[in-house]
Amino acid sequence: MFLASTSEYVDRALRGFARDHRDIVTLHTGPTYVRARDPNPNRRVGLVSGGGSGHEPMHVGLVGPGMLDAAVPGKVFASPHNRQVYEASRATAGPDGVLHIVKNYTGDRINFGIAAERLTHDGVPVARVLVDDDVATESAAAATGRRGTGATIIVEKLLGAAADRGAGLADLAALGTEVVARSRSIAVASASHTSHVTGQPGFALAPDEIEYGVGIHGERARRTIPRPPLEELVDRMVGDVVSHLPSGDRALLLVNGLGGTTTIELYNVFGLAEEALDRHGIAVEGSLVGTWTPALDMKGFSITVTMLDAERDGWRTYWDAPAWTATLRK
Amino acid sequence: MFLASTSEYVDRALRGFARDHRDIVTLHTGPTYVRARDPNPNRRVGLVSGGGSGHEPMHVGLVGPGMLDAAVPGKVFASPHNRQVYEASRATAGPDGVLHIVKNYTGDRINFGIAAERLTHDGVPVARVLVDDDVATESAAAATGRRGTGATIIVEKLLGAAADRGAGLADLAALGTEVVARSRSIAVASASHTSHVTGQPGFALAPDEIEYGVGIHGERARRTIPRPPLEELVDRMVGDVVSHLPSGDRALLLVNGLGGTTTIELYNVFGLAEEALDRHGIAVEGSLVGTWTPALDMKGFSITVTMLDAERDGWRTYWDAPAWTATLRK
Repeated sequence: MFLASTSEYVDRALRGFARDHRDIVTLHTGPTYVRARDPNPNRRVGLVSGGGSGHEPMHVGLVGPGMLDAAVPGKVFASPHNRQVYEASRATAGPDGVLHIVKNYTGDRINFGIAAERLTHDGVPVARVLVDDDVATESAAAATGRRGTGATIIVEKLLGAAADRGAGLADLAALGTEVVARSRSIAVASASHTSHVTGQPGFALAPDEIEYGVGIHGERARRTIPRPPLEELVDRMVGDVVSHLPSGDRALLLVNGLGGTTTIELYNVFGLAEEALDRHGIAVEGSLVGTWTPALDMKGFSITVTMLDAERDGWRTYWDAPAWTATLRK
Repeated sequence: MFLASTSEYVDRALRGFARDHRDIVTLHTGPTYVRARDPNPNRRVGLVSGGGSGHEPMHVGLVGPGMLDAAVPGKVFASPHNRQVYEASRATAGPDGVLHIVKNYTGDRINFGIAAERLTHDGVPVARVLVDDDVATESAAAATGRRGTGATIIVEKLLGAAADRGAGLADLAALGTEVVARSRSIAVASASHTSHVTGQPGFALAPDEIEYGVGIHGERARRTIPRPPLEELVDRMVGDVVSHLPSGDRALLLVNGLGGTTTIELYNVFGLAEEALDRHGIAVEGSLVGTWTPALDMKGFSITVTMLDAERDGWRTYWDAPAWTATLRK
């Protein structure tokens, strides 16, 4: 990997990012977080997310009008420190407090949790939306539950729009929880990411194999499978995702590259996923195709479906609402 | 690679792209081109670019208000057919004709050239801006001249803004030629792209080597060099680029990923490139960091500098002008 000859390459990247997008964000250091330059005065609640680095644009590329008030990056694939979360939350809390959007990983849960306790002690209202969308980790036996992956992008977009309209903390938390409940994902990879520590692949795969259900930190899937034609693979992935969702007849569709996947590949997947959803009687009403939640430079992709129905037409409005971040602009 | 089991995977990707961004573009087939849905009525000249696929978002992701009126994609790494160029030009020519923005490759030159002859025969005014920014191919002996790479993004952004203000064909051609003359690039890779034909790497590199001066179709560099620390590498690249540019004290800087390069890496490069330019007395006044002109999934990056000076403050205005394409939004 092309990284500066120092352990501070994440901080260097953040400084570069903040300069490149200085019209949208400011970088706070000691502790580190990225904050929206011009907070929306209509917001009653600050939206704060975060997690390990290596998944960019998530989350720092999603800070700005219409989405996050602050993002708290950890080192590569490592949780941010709770002091970062606490300070970012204090800086961006609205009159109705702060909402934490947390992907379901132990380190993130612990650090956001400690920060939430301190905020509560300070008298700052705080609530949490836990994103756990990855059906590859669905198991009654797994105490940690499903991992949080691509659905985070959708949650942050919808909650950002709701927060812009002045929604309160309890309403935002309820909305976020419902969006998560109606969102599921699955990811596959044909080649590992490059380890930022060793410079070597994080795991080995034969050319004719794929990881079915890979995680965004290189967590191996429960199944390494012979590589099927893409049509079959996408059909299976969509079937798996839909089988874990409540029924509905329309959806938001995120086709996400894991880092080393080309736009041509992603749009092949998108077209096949649309067709597969159509066979399930589900129309795609909003979509996002690109590298949104990568695992460094992994070759692979994920499919996330958020199920809509007649009662949730408002989500479409939130999806289409304006946003102006470094990466997602509507 | 994850491609549909058909030779039509580029067309499939284009159909998916056009559906995903149906608010911005329309896809024409027979022959294939992507067109802006809502042309700017102020424009007197249509802007048409194109080239091989595998470099997305270039060019289809740059169609829309503020940038291109149409983009003409070929197959992967192959020129579009002249009939595509001709039809796209006929469809988008303004009262003052059409400007072709062409990267300097033989196939592209020939096909845009044939289309231009047909347009001239039809009485449609046509001019061409040839983008040839890659200093790795600078050689008095090379009859084909410098390759066209990342500077194309900058040319298309500046010309789009000028066209929106009603500039005529000759003025746009002159501006484009001057932007090219003041833009130079260099690219490096630590690993090849994956061949879309064989599924294998296009070339082999040892872990401690890089291609210094690689092309965006996997053209080997004249030099494979031992891999230096990133600080040294970026310093050398910036020095090479600046030595091929007219003098100036401010610049636009594009740090472009070649496909399999992470955001963290690109922002490490960006920070180091800013520092290197500062040592040359050049301030970065506008920047773009991301995967803008990839070579499929190659691991590497390019640096493009467009030199500004007091006489070219208007270029800053063009750079900052609004644009609303699938990928570049300002």
